[in-house]
Amino acid sequence: MRTFFGVGCLLVICAGSVLARTVNVEDHGIVPGQDVTFKVNQLLEELQGEKGVTLYFPKGRYEFKPENAIEKYRAVTNHDNSLKRIAFPLYGFEDFTLDGGESTFLFYGRICPVIVENSKNIMLKNFSIDWDTPFHHELTVVERDEKNNTFVAEVSPMKHGFKVQGGKLLLGHYGWEDELGQNIPYDPKTGAPYWDTRRYGLKYRGAKAANVGENRVRLQDATRLAPPLGAVLCAWGNSPNRLAQSIHLGNSLNTTIENVTVYAGGGMGLIAERCENIHLNKFVVTSAEGRTLSARADATHFLGCKGLIHVENCLLEHMGDDGINVHGAYVKVVEYMGDNTFLCEISHRQQKGLIFCEPGDKVMLTSRKNVQPLYESTVTATRILNESRFLMTVDMMPETYPEGPLSFENLTWYPDVIMKKCIVRENRARSVLISTKGKVLLEDNWFSSQMHGVLIEGDNKSWYESGGVRDVTINNNTFVNHGYGNGQGYPLYAAPMLLPEQTLGDDQYHWNIRFTNNRIKNFNGHLVHAKSVKNLIVEENTVEVDNTYPSSSGLPAVALDFCKDVRVKNNSFAGFEFPIRIESKGGTTGLKVEHNTGLDSGTLNK
Amino acid sequence: MRTFFGVGCLLVICAGSVLARTVNVEDHGIVPGQDVTFKVNQLLEELQGEKGVTLYFPKGRYEFKPENAIEKYRAVTNHDNSLKRIAFPLYGFEDFTLDGGESTFLFYGRICPVIVENSKNIMLKNFSIDWDTPFHHELTVVERDEKNNTFVAEVSPMKHGFKVQGGKLLLGHYGWEDELGQNIPYDPKTGAPYWDTRRYGLKYRGAKAANVGENRVRLQDATRLAPPLGAVLCAWGNSPNRLAQSIHLGNSLNTTIENVTVYAGGGMGLIAERCENIHLNKFVVTSAEGRTLSARADATHFLGCKGLIHVENCLLEHMGDDGINVHGAYVKVVEYMGDNTFLCEISHRQQKGLIFCEPGDKVMLTSRKNVQPLYESTVTATRILNESRFLMTVDMMPETYPEGPLSFENLTWYPDVIMKKCIVRENRARSVLISTKGKVLLEDNWFSSQMHGVLIEGDNKSWYESGGVRDVTINNNTFVNHGYGNGQGYPLYAAPMLLPEQTLGDDQYHWNIRFTNNRIKNFNGHLVHAKSVKNLIVEENTVEVDNTYPSSSGLPAVALDFCKDVRVKNNSFAGFEFPIRIESKGGTTGLKVEHNTGLDSGTLNK
Repeated sequence: MRTFFGVGCLLVICAGSVLARTVNVEDHGIVPGQDVTFKVNQLLEELQGEKGVTLYFPKGRYEFKPENAIEKYRAVTNHDNSLKRIAFPLYGFEDFTLDGGESTFLFYGRICPVIVENSKNIMLKNFSIDWDTPFHHELTVVERDEKNNTFVAEVSPMKHGFKVQGGKLLLGHYGWEDELGQNIPYDPKTGAPYWDTRRYGLKYRGAKAANVGENRVRLQDATRLAPPLGAVLCAWGNSPNRLAQSIHLGNSLNTTIENVTVYAGGGMGLIAERCENIHLNKFVVTSAEGRTLSARADATHFLGCKGLIHVENCLLEHMGDDGINVHGAYVKVVEYMGDNTFLCEISHRQQKGLIFCEPGDKVMLTSRKNVQPLYESTVTATRILNESRFLMTVDMMPETYPEGPLSFENLTWYPDVIMKKCIVRENRARSVLISTKGKVLLEDNWFSSQMHGVLIEGDNKSWYESGGVRDVTINNNTFVNHGYGNGQGYPLYAAPMLLPEQTLGDDQYHWNIRFTNNRIKNFNGHLVHAKSVKNLIVEENTVEVDNTYPSSSGLPAVALDFCKDVRVKNNSFAGFEFPIRIESKGGTTGLKVEHNTGLDSGTLNK
Repeated sequence: MRTFFGVGCLLVICAGSVLARTVNVEDHGIVPGQDVTFKVNQLLEELQGEKGVTLYFPKGRYEFKPENAIEKYRAVTNHDNSLKRIAFPLYGFEDFTLDGGESTFLFYGRICPVIVENSKNIMLKNFSIDWDTPFHHELTVVERDEKNNTFVAEVSPMKHGFKVQGGKLLLGHYGWEDELGQNIPYDPKTGAPYWDTRRYGLKYRGAKAANVGENRVRLQDATRLAPPLGAVLCAWGNSPNRLAQSIHLGNSLNTTIENVTVYAGGGMGLIAERCENIHLNKFVVTSAEGRTLSARADATHFLGCKGLIHVENCLLEHMGDDGINVHGAYVKVVEYMGDNTFLCEISHRQQKGLIFCEPGDKVMLTSRKNVQPLYESTVTATRILNESRFLMTVDMMPETYPEGPLSFENLTWYPDVIMKKCIVRENRARSVLISTKGKVLLEDNWFSSQMHGVLIEGDNKSWYESGGVRDVTINNNTFVNHGYGNGQGYPLYAAPMLLPEQTLGDDQYHWNIRFTNNRIKNFNGHLVHAKSVKNLIVEENTVEVDNTYPSSSGLPAVALDFCKDVRVKNNSFAGFEFPIRIESKGGTTGLKVEHNTGLDSGTLNK
């Protein structure tokens, strides 16, 4: 790409008279087929501070190795904080486009492909991210002895080999070894995790490995039950193992990712925190040819963002965890220090280092006893003590200091979400998790995952993902066989997750959920499970039987618990040979069940 | 300490008209008997930027806990890099005194007591550092079954208990657990590690632990041989376990530590790097009452310092590693990048993050094949890529690029050392390690350690501690029973440590060592082992038998190998009932052996 304005420099007059130029990496000695990390790092350093640059890669396979990569300490939510080697460190960039020109960016070992931090108007497009050796191994079962709970598996990839040491299997990587730790067995017949997956759960003690051939290992008592012949056990070791997410966005405004494919990663495909406006179009997370698993954790994950998260035309499949998760964080109040100042603590180990709030943010003081909102205030000052604790000063205090354990959630940093025309499938865990107080629309998507379809949860107990939703529309989507993991999943499951000692308050936790016009095909006849939801509309959905998996969970098709103002109307169920029923408990009020087909509403409307 | 000039503020007119004042912590709500970390952090933040402050603690026991401590990522040489919680973060201070007023600073868990970084004229004085629970456990053997290689031990301290899990002993700490890992068995009769310590070395496989009482554990096959009844096995788990050094000095000018005692630490007592002029007076590392071990690693350690390291009147005892170690670093040349620029790599895992050089430093290109100096140049630019690698540009290059593997050592950052009137004893490993090209004087000290007395080594193979010495005087010291660990130690052992494929060059590695007027009492009759030393004087030393340990190692009292210009004169050996001999090999030249008593010089002078 020679240009008329000097080497690698194309000047364009843009609207608003901003000078924009395209920098062709070829003009800087960056060519396919070799490790270009150092040169890319160097070029980006030169470009920092310049607005309007498009960094263009002619189509090719560019390699990125960690040895000479720049390094920064990164706290990455839902991952393991550490010094990270970085291929594309986009710190403080503005009006910048990374155009991969349909290239493959091939990574080796623990290096983070793209980090966007403290930047504005960034576009990432037209490239794929893969690793020479992914962060997991695939063990294909080639022999099986159920009686002795033993199986022989072929190990792939073998580039860094494996070894057996003291009866333990150690799987080789680029500079480290993984034990047989976190894993999921995939069924080659469905391309998805197995029905009743936990049968094959790992036993952490008593397992014995033996090397039985160049690329074969025999594992005895490694799993509760030996996986079936042909099963692909995708395994990625124990924590800390989320050290190299594929794309990390932090503290940035207006980020677009378009036509980008992630084949692997030592963590999530995309993790974003404290960003405003993120647009994903044709963002794909999938497994590479010859592999079963793609990203080992979630395909996409958003914590404490605002503005709009717009996700369209995306394919998210074969992940080791959820398709998309949008939420905030509950932080604990350790102590009230006086002078409107709270000593707060990040609640979850993998949220350490999170910027929970900054001055100007609206925060809600929340009971950790009954997860009810208590008092809204505005942050006037913060002081970070360490990755776990910080001081937060607010402008107004309640007249009486509330009793019991307290938390805060940040009301300013909840985004709206639009997710359209996306596919999420063949992954461990859920298709979608939504815990935001913003306006949410999920429409025209196709979902099929091992656990629930759309999980609207919020918990102040283990993951500390806030908060209760206020406006969610789930319309015209297809849900196929959710919950084949244990047979009990629902297309929509909305309920806060509570500790035994936590109680529901007087008011519902979630508000305004519309689940309408969705087409569901499944084995268990499930439609909606809702607990502590106010204003729930379940209308015009069709549920049709699918015989891929064993049928009936024994659970109600529609399960309601402590809900208020619920309309279940014009839904139809077809083909099920077991009772399809609705159950209401926990003092649900204002329930209307009307004009449904194939749903036994018992005495509810009588 | 009320003052006439406002609360906690004593103004003094100093020479040079600098305003100095004393800040009494009591006036800032910092009082003994409680966790004062947050308040101390806050007060130090307020004082930053002010010159001439003395921060004064009225005598008491002040507690420091990690929960609310500020945190910074720290690369600490010879330790494990990590985010560190810090009690006294002295970053960018000038003319500052921390006067503990004879207080005890008591720490809990992983918190670093004092870090001095990028500071000038800092004085630390009059306090002791201890931990509520130290970073090791002491297991006292109360029953022993040699036949079954089993012993029962009482565990101390028990504050955080211990547990046995899957046959493994897990020793409780403030927020973590240690396996039975690195350890040293102490002999209560001598207060020092056992004779032939390795007999009791840990077996890392096949060990079985069982809980046999409130504070008792039975260990079978945990050690090669069950330690004797009464033995105190001091154990501190496996790496990473050097996460909380006691005092860390970095990039600072003129630091004085006076009347400071360190009783424990999760690493070294004092670690200093890239500092100019450090003065230790009455710095004590010792075990607390009721404990056997003090610091788990070296008492003091200096890497890449310059100016003068002045150590006097210090007591360093009961450590898990060396008394003092002064050295530089060899970094590897990965690749010559052209334009006088080298891609270099930090050689040792625990040196990662080291600032090897800065522009203006003189560096020596060195052969990694025969550890000989090749070419001296001056650094004009550096660029740090990550904790392992950096680019270094020099002003001049040799006419012909040298063949074979290369390293650099930094000639500018080698300090002079004066060590006087110190005691180093009852520790694992050596009394003193010296690898500096500066002028060194060790005088009037008392040494007795498990390995060598003074080890002058330098290695470009495993620890990568440069460099060959140029001027060392070891005069009028007492050496008692060095090398009781394996019986083979020497009062003075000077020899570069080489890989099998490394060879000595044409010239000697170490130059100008004078070992004179020392009094030695030992069991093996050893005096000096020297390899590749030029200009070695061994004069007027007395060596007298001591019967504490089994006698004779079979090794020569004076062993010379590839030395040049050596004078062994007027030394006397008394009381040994086995041959005391001198051996010279490896083409040693210019050897004079004269007027020694009790030394069989064989045919050397004939």
